[in-house]
Amino acid sequence: MIEQLSVALLGANGRMGAEAVKAIDAAADLTLVAALGRNDSLESLVSSGAQIVVDLTVPESTEANVRFAVEHGMHAVVGTTGWDAGRLARLEELLADRPGVGVLIAPNFALGSVLASAFAAKASKYFESVEIIELHHPDKVDAPSGTAVRTAQLISAERTAAGVPSSPDATTTELEGARGSDVEGVRVHSVRLSGLVAHQEVLLGGPGEQLTIRHDSFDRASFMPGVLLGIRNVAAHPGLTVGLDGYLDLGL
Amino acid sequence: MIEQLSVALLGANGRMGAEAVKAIDAAADLTLVAALGRNDSLESLVSSGAQIVVDLTVPESTEANVRFAVEHGMHAVVGTTGWDAGRLARLEELLADRPGVGVLIAPNFALGSVLASAFAAKASKYFESVEIIELHHPDKVDAPSGTAVRTAQLISAERTAAGVPSSPDATTTELEGARGSDVEGVRVHSVRLSGLVAHQEVLLGGPGEQLTIRHDSFDRASFMPGVLLGIRNVAAHPGLTVGLDGYLDLGL
Amino acid sequence: MIEQLSVALLGANGRMGAEAVKAIDAAADLTLVAALGRNDSLESLVSSGAQIVVDLTVPESTEANVRFAVEHGMHAVVGTTGWDAGRLARLEELLADRPGVGVLIAPNFALGSVLASAFAAKASKYFESVEIIELHHPDKVDAPSGTAVRTAQLISAERTAAGVPSSPDATTTELEGARGSDVEGVRVHSVRLSGLVAHQEVLLGGPGEQLTIRHDSFDRASFMPGVLLGIRNVAAHPGLTVGLDGYLDLGL
Amino acid sequence: MIEQLSVALLGANGRMGAEAVKAIDAAADLTLVAALGRNDSLESLVSSGAQIVVDLTVPESTEANVRFAVEHGMHAVVGTTGWDAGRLARLEELLADRPGVGVLIAPNFALGSVLASAFAAKASKYFESVEIIELHHPDKVDAPSGTAVRTAQLISAERTAAGVPSSPDATTTELEGARGSDVEGVRVHSVRLSGLVAHQEVLLGGPGEQLTIRHDSFDRASFMPGVLLGIRNVAAHPGLTVGLDGYLDLGL
Repeated sequence: MIEQLSVALLGANGRMGAEAVKAIDAAADLTLVAALGRNDSLESLVSSGAQIVVDLTVPESTEANVRFAVEHGMHAVVGTTGWDAGRLARLEELLADRPGVGVLIAPNFALGSVLASAFAAKASKYFESVEIIELHHPDKVDAPSGTAVRTAQLISAERTAAGVPSSPDATTTELEGARGSDVEGVRVHSVRLSGLVAHQEVLLGGPGEQLTIRHDSFDRASFMPGVLLGIRNVAAHPGLTVGLDGYLDLGL
Repeated sequence: MIEQLSVALLGANGRMGAEAVKAIDAAADLTLVAALGRNDSLESLVSSGAQIVVDLTVPESTEANVRFAVEHGMHAVVGTTGWDAGRLARLEELLADRPGVGVLIAPNFALGSVLASAFAAKASKYFESVEIIELHHPDKVDAPSGTAVRTAQLISAERTAAGVPSSPDATTTELEGARGSDVEGVRVHSVRLSGLVAHQEVLLGGPGEQLTIRHDSFDRASFMPGVLLGIRNVAAHPGLTVGLDGYLDLGL
Repeated sequence: MIEQLSVALLGANGRMGAEAVKAIDAAADLTLVAALGRNDSLESLVSSGAQIVVDLTVPESTEANVRFAVEHGMHAVVGTTGWDAGRLARLEELLADRPGVGVLIAPNFALGSVLASAFAAKASKYFESVEIIELHHPDKVDAPSGTAVRTAQLISAERTAAGVPSSPDATTTELEGARGSDVEGVRVHSVRLSGLVAHQEVLLGGPGEQLTIRHDSFDRASFMPGVLLGIRNVAAHPGLTVGLDGYLDLGL
Repeated sequence: MIEQLSVALLGANGRMGAEAVKAIDAAADLTLVAALGRNDSLESLVSSGAQIVVDLTVPESTEANVRFAVEHGMHAVVGTTGWDAGRLARLEELLADRPGVGVLIAPNFALGSVLASAFAAKASKYFESVEIIELHHPDKVDAPSGTAVRTAQLISAERTAAGVPSSPDATTTELEGARGSDVEGVRVHSVRLSGLVAHQEVLLGGPGEQLTIRHDSFDRASFMPGVLLGIRNVAAHPGLTVGLDGYLDLGL
């Protein structure tokens, strides 16, 4: 018999939550012991015997949810946004008194996306040029995407630390906007196209060669392997971890 | 024995000219009867017996070269830029008196590039969204590229004629330049990357599908099949033809 | 007020049929007057006043459905497979007596896919090399895909007619299968990858350049623009048309 | 003043050697103190004062060249093939007596290619499916490429160690070769296309997402940043290092 982890899910009626119910049910080593919606009381978590709480709720309630879990000795895996510096500091303080409890806060559960950003940043100091193209459905209201901005920041930090100069660019005549936006010295281009979901391509170029790292998200299902990886590993990572890459084996 | 066409080349010492010498020499059905540089007299064209003159010179001399050829009953294939409306009008007038003579003026001899633009324009009225990404080496001084601007104009004309609305775009928060430049309603993004030469991608999207038409120019050699196609077909196209697509069989 | 076309749908309970119900309902110029499932009688079509019948049923019933429509003076748009030469011949015979009635039989309603195949075939005679990569989800049981085989056949026919030699290939040492399958002289490679739906890339190469024509189908919704285009145009195309490209304006 | 490293080049008249002469000359921190061709004596290395010897010769002479360098206390950077297990063992024995001397033997100096293979291997255990497409010019005689075989082996080792099952594949009807070659359980597809140089794409897929890692080599110049990185770092890596990745900072 496979050893079981008992999991409680908060936000079970949202779109991500519904996917997570399916994914946990399909995992042979996980048992879903509670699935709570907006109006359900957290108290039922205690009687459920959950070892791990997954929070896929809303920014307004995520902090209280996680505090409740930690105070009751349960680990937490959190996909909800809204964790600013103040919230993170308060959480770390709380965890200091609970040395065995682990919390993972992951702004992005798509394994491929997390890997793509990490690889692009690491490679960027070996190439003269780097630019980012992100492509999304036309209903998206912000450009560039948050993921592209974060990827550009990681790249910029890596290149600055290694003393790599800016990507060369001889442009003297530019139609407004042609060369994209500038995020900490990295050009980011945002395509909006009917039919697409969420895609990102990092282009790295040097004399006679190009390295391209592309990630495509076709579907919300792409977040589930990351959620499961978080559930299975949170107990082994006591304290606070921000970002799924903290659980990935990326040493090369 | 293969029937031979006699070809004279003007601008034989330039980079394109040097490629053309090699390409004509390698073609079993073409004989290079004259290869003139900057200071050579056009008079030698007459004694060379050339049937077709290829002009790969500079804007300053191309008009005089082509007039000389036409006046002496030779067809002309022209890759030099600088043919504005006035020059074209004067040439058409001259050709009116020489009904058997053909002239091809081609701003772009890369077959693949000409095909890509034609296909993209034709397809564009069947899709909700269309955007262009062009990618070049970082020494390029203008953005977007001339080819991208022409492709966007062809697409815009085709969509307008068919009554297709603008590509949908819900962007309300944009970092300056993120959404690229706007060429007659078509978004064009310009990437500059070390290692690249000249590349263009047209992305067309509709519900649940995407069509991508991409052209890569790796090398000046890519212009030669178009030059040879021009040489072989110019005699069969009397009068003035602008654009290599006029010689391509694109009826689908 | 927009003039309305009255449409009846056969196979309304299938997956394609359900999408079609939504697409017709959403179209301002179309009225769905009947939506029949497996056990419903065709007789109700007559009283519904349908001008156009859309058949998205099964190979076993499609011929009888289309004959019924034609005999009652209704146009038909057919997405069901199973129309072999014998069935087509019988249908043409029937249509000969009904000169005003149009039937469209389309094995593929994805506009982008139909365009991609047509463009690839037309371009293929201008390039030395051509290969096809098709990529699908790992549950697909046949390799290569039917669309890839048809695309290869179109390319082969076009190149043969133009006298273009085979793509060059110096391979002397090959691990079994590395160079893909051979469909009428065109190499076809089949990738099966979790996360994908249905994708095809035609690569065309010549000296110093490459033309790539790629189509991605992410979702069944991609067939609906083609279905609507068929409905709107079938009355203007009396007689039998096989293939959606017969309705597309592809003259370049 | 920039501190200088004194470099001697063996194989200076070959194609790679000629590129290396240019690259070393252009590097402000490197001085080329000797450039030897086939018939030149190694003795001149001693008088040249070279600290580092770069070997870009042929399999027949590389072992003797490297031994000579090590015996004279010079570091060596080696791009020549032909280093089998026996040669490597003899070299390690020699180096054991020369603890301060470093030797780098790199079968592939293209930084981007080395990074791409390392990233693909590391990512492969997080995805259900992985396949490789390699694309080369049509004069290549072997399929798949050596780089693709090595990449597949790295991926296979990583997945096996992590207990990841084979990529799913429901194919029951296959036209011979359609699914590519099988290298230790990884499917590898080889495209040969006029216009191309050397390209490789690793496709990784899971539920609803895809990660693509692509490397393009357009030109021999792409090897030079790797050669320079080797020269600059060999003194800091005493003993034998096989593979440029041993010098790259890939810890993520």
